[in-house]
Amino acid sequence: MKTLVIVTHPNIHESTVNKTWVQMLRQHPDRFTVHELYSEYPDGVIDVEREQALVEEHQNIVLQFPVYWFNCPPLLKQWCDEVLTYGWAYGSKGKAFENKKLGIAVSLGAPASEYSAEGSVGYTVAETLRPFELTANYISANYQPLFTFHTIDTYESYDEAAAQLVADSAGDYLAHLNTYYA
Amino acid sequence: MKTLVIVTHPNIHESTVNKTWVQMLRQHPDRFTVHELYSEYPDGVIDVEREQALVEEHQNIVLQFPVYWFNCPPLLKQWCDEVLTYGWAYGSKGKAFENKKLGIAVSLGAPASEYSAEGSVGYTVAETLRPFELTANYISANYQPLFTFHTIDTYESYDEAAAQLVADSAGDYLAHLNTYYA
Repeated sequence: MKTLVIVTHPNIHESTVNKTWVQMLRQHPDRFTVHELYSEYPDGVIDVEREQALVEEHQNIVLQFPVYWFNCPPLLKQWCDEVLTYGWAYGSKGKAFENKKLGIAVSLGAPASEYSAEGSVGYTVAETLRPFELTANYISANYQPLFTFHTIDTYESYDEAAAQLVADSAGDYLAHLNTYYA
Repeated sequence: MKTLVIVTHPNIHESTVNKTWVQMLRQHPDRFTVHELYSEYPDGVIDVEREQALVEEHQNIVLQFPVYWFNCPPLLKQWCDEVLTYGWAYGSKGKAFENKKLGIAVSLGAPASEYSAEGSVGYTVAETLRPFELTANYISANYQPLFTFHTIDTYESYDEAAAQLVADSAGDYLAHLNTYYA
């Protein structure tokens, strides 16, 4: 059961976490189709039919992105608006995601401790990213537990220990995918 | 104290609610600056300096948009990513929104009753749109209560009674702005 991983990062070449994750995913081409929206659609014009066909060809869908401003990158929201059409993703004849697993895998700048009622954010990541859960519910997908990696805000702070955490996160991500998208 | 209303609607000419609201706002040019992102930036290239200057010239900021997939239109997310820069909107020297009021005014397809623990959405609008509250908090803006208008999903359903509700909503919106952005 192959998993489609839709990666949306506006600047992945300068990223640390998402780039590491993509490198890991690409080592398993039999299991994952890595689909990077910003490199596929640099002009921002999404091929809706192609996207719908990709979804139809896969049993599991993962949306992978960095969280900026507590939300997804703009091109992923555009993907939702344009690809999740009435009669395909929802509506009485819209069953594209029925019986499919759908979930998100995200990197976040702030430490995990900040994402709590007592932390500076004040809400959990699940509460913060509720729009994705609600979207999954609306299209009758089987929403999976979040995969989250809390990193550090500035590149200056990427010392050796942080780099090791990022490297380890790829293994954690793979284990997560093995658990929930088998 | 003039209010900047940043309107983000990918297709406002075919909209009902947001167009009605913009028409109302434009009747009060002494009080509101209506700034429509999709008409200002049809190619999706945002003039960051101009946007920052606009924010600086106003005491109150309202983000007005239709909620699709429980979230804002892509160009508004892009605006957040590009305009809310370190050292301007946040960081020790980033004080652009300090002492400014910021809030959202949104139209939603589903009836209000669906936005509750018992309804089909399962969460309130405030819970659904938490990313905007968290963004406001992060930039130290004074986040205002939501203005929400629940409409109906399909244009076919816009009978006379519905049209009257939309017309009335413009008055409600103005009253809301008078209350929270005076």
